[in-house]
Amino acid sequence: MDKPDRIPRSRTDDYSRQAIGERRDFVTRRTGAGLDSISSDTIDPRLTRGNIENFLGTIQVPLGLAGPLRLNGEHAQGDFYVPLATTEGTLVASYSRGMRVITECGGARTTVVRHSMQRAPVFVLADALQAREFGDWLNNKFDDIRAAAEATTRVGKLTHIEQYPIANMLYTRFCFTTGDAAGQNMTGKAAFAACEWIQQNHPQHPEYFLSGALDTDKKHSAINTIQTRGKRVIAEFTLKRQVAREMLRLDTEALFRYRQIAMAGAQHSGAAYSGAHSANGIAALFIATGQDEANVAESHAGITYGQLLENGDYYWAVTLPALICGTYGGGTGLPTQRECLEILGCYGAGKADKFAEIVAATVLAGDISLTSAVLSSEWVSSHESLGRNR
Amino acid sequence: MDKPDRIPRSRTDDYSRQAIGERRDFVTRRTGAGLDSISSDTIDPRLTRGNIENFLGTIQVPLGLAGPLRLNGEHAQGDFYVPLATTEGTLVASYSRGMRVITECGGARTTVVRHSMQRAPVFVLADALQAREFGDWLNNKFDDIRAAAEATTRVGKLTHIEQYPIANMLYTRFCFTTGDAAGQNMTGKAAFAACEWIQQNHPQHPEYFLSGALDTDKKHSAINTIQTRGKRVIAEFTLKRQVAREMLRLDTEALFRYRQIAMAGAQHSGAAYSGAHSANGIAALFIATGQDEANVAESHAGITYGQLLENGDYYWAVTLPALICGTYGGGTGLPTQRECLEILGCYGAGKADKFAEIVAATVLAGDISLTSAVLSSEWVSSHESLGRNR
Amino acid sequence: MDKPDRIPRSRTDDYSRQAIGERRDFVTRRTGAGLDSISSDTIDPRLTRGNIENFLGTIQVPLGLAGPLRLNGEHAQGDFYVPLATTEGTLVASYSRGMRVITECGGARTTVVRHSMQRAPVFVLADALQAREFGDWLNNKFDDIRAAAEATTRVGKLTHIEQYPIANMLYTRFCFTTGDAAGQNMTGKAAFAACEWIQQNHPQHPEYFLSGALDTDKKHSAINTIQTRGKRVIAEFTLKRQVAREMLRLDTEALFRYRQIAMAGAQHSGAAYSGAHSANGIAALFIATGQDEANVAESHAGITYGQLLENGDYYWAVTLPALICGTYGGGTGLPTQRECLEILGCYGAGKADKFAEIVAATVLAGDISLTSAVLSSEWVSSHESLGRNR
Amino acid sequence: MDKPDRIPRSRTDDYSRQAIGERRDFVTRRTGAGLDSISSDTIDPRLTRGNIENFLGTIQVPLGLAGPLRLNGEHAQGDFYVPLATTEGTLVASYSRGMRVITECGGARTTVVRHSMQRAPVFVLADALQAREFGDWLNNKFDDIRAAAEATTRVGKLTHIEQYPIANMLYTRFCFTTGDAAGQNMTGKAAFAACEWIQQNHPQHPEYFLSGALDTDKKHSAINTIQTRGKRVIAEFTLKRQVAREMLRLDTEALFRYRQIAMAGAQHSGAAYSGAHSANGIAALFIATGQDEANVAESHAGITYGQLLENGDYYWAVTLPALICGTYGGGTGLPTQRECLEILGCYGAGKADKFAEIVAATVLAGDISLTSAVLSSEWVSSHESLGRNR
Repeated sequence: MDKPDRIPRSRTDDYSRQAIGERRDFVTRRTGAGLDSISSDTIDPRLTRGNIENFLGTIQVPLGLAGPLRLNGEHAQGDFYVPLATTEGTLVASYSRGMRVITECGGARTTVVRHSMQRAPVFVLADALQAREFGDWLNNKFDDIRAAAEATTRVGKLTHIEQYPIANMLYTRFCFTTGDAAGQNMTGKAAFAACEWIQQNHPQHPEYFLSGALDTDKKHSAINTIQTRGKRVIAEFTLKRQVAREMLRLDTEALFRYRQIAMAGAQHSGAAYSGAHSANGIAALFIATGQDEANVAESHAGITYGQLLENGDYYWAVTLPALICGTYGGGTGLPTQRECLEILGCYGAGKADKFAEIVAATVLAGDISLTSAVLSSEWVSSHESLGRNR
Repeated sequence: MDKPDRIPRSRTDDYSRQAIGERRDFVTRRTGAGLDSISSDTIDPRLTRGNIENFLGTIQVPLGLAGPLRLNGEHAQGDFYVPLATTEGTLVASYSRGMRVITECGGARTTVVRHSMQRAPVFVLADALQAREFGDWLNNKFDDIRAAAEATTRVGKLTHIEQYPIANMLYTRFCFTTGDAAGQNMTGKAAFAACEWIQQNHPQHPEYFLSGALDTDKKHSAINTIQTRGKRVIAEFTLKRQVAREMLRLDTEALFRYRQIAMAGAQHSGAAYSGAHSANGIAALFIATGQDEANVAESHAGITYGQLLENGDYYWAVTLPALICGTYGGGTGLPTQRECLEILGCYGAGKADKFAEIVAATVLAGDISLTSAVLSSEWVSSHESLGRNR
Repeated sequence: MDKPDRIPRSRTDDYSRQAIGERRDFVTRRTGAGLDSISSDTIDPRLTRGNIENFLGTIQVPLGLAGPLRLNGEHAQGDFYVPLATTEGTLVASYSRGMRVITECGGARTTVVRHSMQRAPVFVLADALQAREFGDWLNNKFDDIRAAAEATTRVGKLTHIEQYPIANMLYTRFCFTTGDAAGQNMTGKAAFAACEWIQQNHPQHPEYFLSGALDTDKKHSAINTIQTRGKRVIAEFTLKRQVAREMLRLDTEALFRYRQIAMAGAQHSGAAYSGAHSANGIAALFIATGQDEANVAESHAGITYGQLLENGDYYWAVTLPALICGTYGGGTGLPTQRECLEILGCYGAGKADKFAEIVAATVLAGDISLTSAVLSSEWVSSHESLGRNR
Repeated sequence: MDKPDRIPRSRTDDYSRQAIGERRDFVTRRTGAGLDSISSDTIDPRLTRGNIENFLGTIQVPLGLAGPLRLNGEHAQGDFYVPLATTEGTLVASYSRGMRVITECGGARTTVVRHSMQRAPVFVLADALQAREFGDWLNNKFDDIRAAAEATTRVGKLTHIEQYPIANMLYTRFCFTTGDAAGQNMTGKAAFAACEWIQQNHPQHPEYFLSGALDTDKKHSAINTIQTRGKRVIAEFTLKRQVAREMLRLDTEALFRYRQIAMAGAQHSGAAYSGAHSANGIAALFIATGQDEANVAESHAGITYGQLLENGDYYWAVTLPALICGTYGGGTGLPTQRECLEILGCYGAGKADKFAEIVAATVLAGDISLTSAVLSSEWVSSHESLGRNR
């Protein structure tokens, strides 16, 4: 069988209109597909250098607006209008309803309770005893290791190194704070430098791999839920009994009763998230704001917790233990994405925690709306009227 | 505190330029953010009806091209060029490298081994015994229930109902095939009709909720991995020893040795995916082709399996047990997204399995490249040269 | 280094007093340990043939009595006194308290809702497509396969074969009912016969292994919780508000509130059981009645579910999805163990479901007592007065 | 319905022959069961005070001897003969075979790499922000908290407090070392004292519960595997190619190939242990030596890891992250149990790590034997010849 053609690339400037045009022609020649819409992008291709290779154009994802969402967070305070990019009909309307319920009840409190981005090198020693002793050595040399790691970055700080001995190896998680960036690349570079220092300076010069699969980057995992990855964020609010009746057509008692049923189901399923649906809002906000979309895998994990209060109001909290997001780096600076961050007042320095709080509150809003729809049997009818399958 | 303003909407035509313009003005007035880029969308807003509410414009996500990817699948056969939409530098280049390795080794085999999309109603009975007997009744009435469900859809077929008794309840999973659609809405409507039939016809008219949280829609879960959700797809290929040396600069023995280390790490972490990174490729392909991006949460689960063969070649397979995707409905018909499906020859009827096979092979390609980068210490340097953090 | 001595064994009769005596002498000679207590066993060693090799004597585990426990089960009906063998102070007293609470509230309902014991062969095919087709072949030949399996056993019945395709393999679970035996050996023999038949009769004579690790024998697993292993048993009762106050010194509202806290904790921990402690009662009942003690690993999994009723009573249910037990075979016929089964009216034919119901109700009783102790801060004081650490 | 009779108890001396006799008479009268064997116990009932309530007699569990097992551990050094109490035919013979294989290969290395026994109080604050600040306060007051905890115990040492914020709560794990005791009671008492100190001294006097379900006592959990509970122990050895052929009738290549298959199966199942069967050996050793049998639930978790070496030998390691055992307290001092500890040279002070190492090596031995039996199709035939189902 013949070798298929390689994709055309320009060595001199692969983001030039000519290089892009040759690639588009190649695609059409090889596949017969027209690229008119993809080619009608309105951003300067050179801006995407560092975000994409073999640039072909842009995908245009519809953007809707949800809100208002009132927040009394540590960092996010005030009324927000939240841009959501999705192709899933009903989604924006549903989140928007949840946000208005939160607002009507006086707003949600939001708090980032932990920061911890990891790289997870594994070191191979001769046996388990030497691996344990190597772990002690790491503890003793922590200041030097930190210095080696932090020499590679102005922002990242190595806070601690978690150790997990298995067989003759020491699996680790190097835990960093990363400022306003999500920080996977920053921490990769820093951990690599730290590992090189360790290998050179430890008497046995142990073999290591930059990933022992405990990060667990771009993957949901129990260890991320337990130990935190990225930001651990909590959004809480108290659903007033009267608001539930008026805006959601349900009683808080019914809501609380259903919570027991849903929680038993989530436990039995081994579900990564025990509420209704975190991923919808996270994915839509991530596309809108230039986050790495693959991080939905980790970020959607969470714990929903509710208590019916004596006065019939309902305390509702969402805890996201592995929210990976940033307001710097990645796709945050691209034109449309940057505008969405600006809509939220989250573009630029010192905004990452604020943004994380908005994400958590958005998840809470989505759960309010979907749970209510399931309880009031409105789920199907709303998809009928707003969704595609009519 | 004053009530914040509601988002402007038009009752007559919310997708009109005027309605959209008023919303944009509202955003700028309230937040100070300019929307020039978001507003420079080039698609007809009316096309997005059913995909978005409170339309504001579009997010433009950079699109790159990876490949060639040679497939000897059941449905996907030939050489493919794969459009990937992402803001994560290095991603396209890395997947492209993995695809070329597959191609150089003669291509990957891909197979969809199961179809099963669920809604998961829960029925509340008086006690566990009655719940068990209710389950027997469901089995006896299956033909009637199927008829009730399938009356709502031309495409969806109810294949079976899984039963999971807990306490005085019967949790179920109504399992459907859904043709070329991902099918969450189709199955929601069908399951609702079936439940209404059941409630009317069972002598006890049992209370039910449309979701008992065992779907587990938009959430990773053990039950999805075990029982399949959407499509269960497998991509396999044999990495030739010589190709590994030349294109990846590594020995298959080293690769196999590292597999043991990564698998122990994945097991210890309770990771949803035991390979390197499924979510990156899935997310990028999903954005490009108008899939529901939240489904990355479920779809990224998987099992990586490898064996070193006697001749030094390496058998490598990726099994995705819960891949949620379609080539009909959702965002697949939007202009840019449709073009990407056409690049893959996957737009229109009868293409969903072909598309699923391409997704699985893409995941395999990404794991080849990233694993090799970790092993050859190229991970950091490639992000340095291609990524944002330079 | 010298080779250490092998343990003395008699080829003619290893259960003779002489053979046992030589072994005891050997132990004392090699280790200096006296065996007076171990040797003071009062059962005929020949009775242990089939239960133990290299017989040395017996371990005497203290046996206590808990109850009365009133049950309105499908099979277990009446008032029971439950023998528990343990060395854990407080355990019997605590379970006994819980049983009395159940009894005071009118008793517990207990139901076995499913029977399914597995062996889990894996078949290796050339690729995923052939593995899928092999699965279809298994379905078509199910009657023949069942005949081959059931030819090896008078009791075991092959009900169905679950299929889980991964890579080029078909992992299966051969699911049996096993009468009054736990049935691991019976199903092992039957599955082996079935696999041999399959290998001979399938055109490709596929390689197989008797265990593909999906059984998951003697191991907790998500698949066992979801799909059932052994018996799936549910115990339910309604805790009267007044009884809770008088006998447990707590309000049902406080109990329900704490349930939310414990369930969030269990979810976050990835715990196999979401109640207080199933393993204590199961282990103690298993030792008392000659069950295979290793099965505690699987059997302790479960879901606790509660609802506060309108009148202030509290509905409480425990669901054990993987209870492995029997009243025939294993250690059930040994003298002391048989007596314990007789105390429960569970020795002999047709008693396995009755016994399983008693186990589930015992677990429920233990959770009542321990949860109450945690809530009323009595946990520490009761261990002080009854336990060892005074 | 009449109230059932309460179990007879003596207020003056419930361990007297008279009190026991009355209880036995009661059982026979109420159930018709004879208690001759149970009553033929040969230990002084008064010795069981603190281990059992409502004493009725003893269960006699058959004890067999396995070995020799050569260990080159940190604490366990030399050749051991291991007492195993079980009713599961074949078990002792199988473990004994695995031990002889280890010994023939020069012995196993064993290492305790971590000690950490927990109680897991949860503190309820007003909101997530206050819960986070409460966590900071805990860190600042750690010395005082430790002093309060350690005032209750001569042995236990509070090493650190893990913090897991969820909703408006701070879930914690108070981590202790506990000397030669398993330590659940010791740590319960110490954590209670610490919590009381915290509640009194923190300005908000936060509500707390002694268990937030993160311990996770008597339950398998992801958090125990990740964070360690009790002891984290590793046993390693190198299986010589020639020994595998002669004693196990298998090639190490076949063993390694099967490892891949079993590991994919374990991952797919969500199994607590990725090897063949840890629980069998642990349960049998635990009964023999007076451990709390319910701890099998936690202790059986583990990671199996193997690598084929260049010379064809096979490196094999078992990591048990949550082994709960002790050589002091609990049932370790009972007559038959103590003799078993003495057989192992593990009775008395300073022996807990030695004992833990023997447990881990026993698990390794069991996996060697069972895995080989599965591979050589001897599993069924050996149960036929040694087990009950003949």
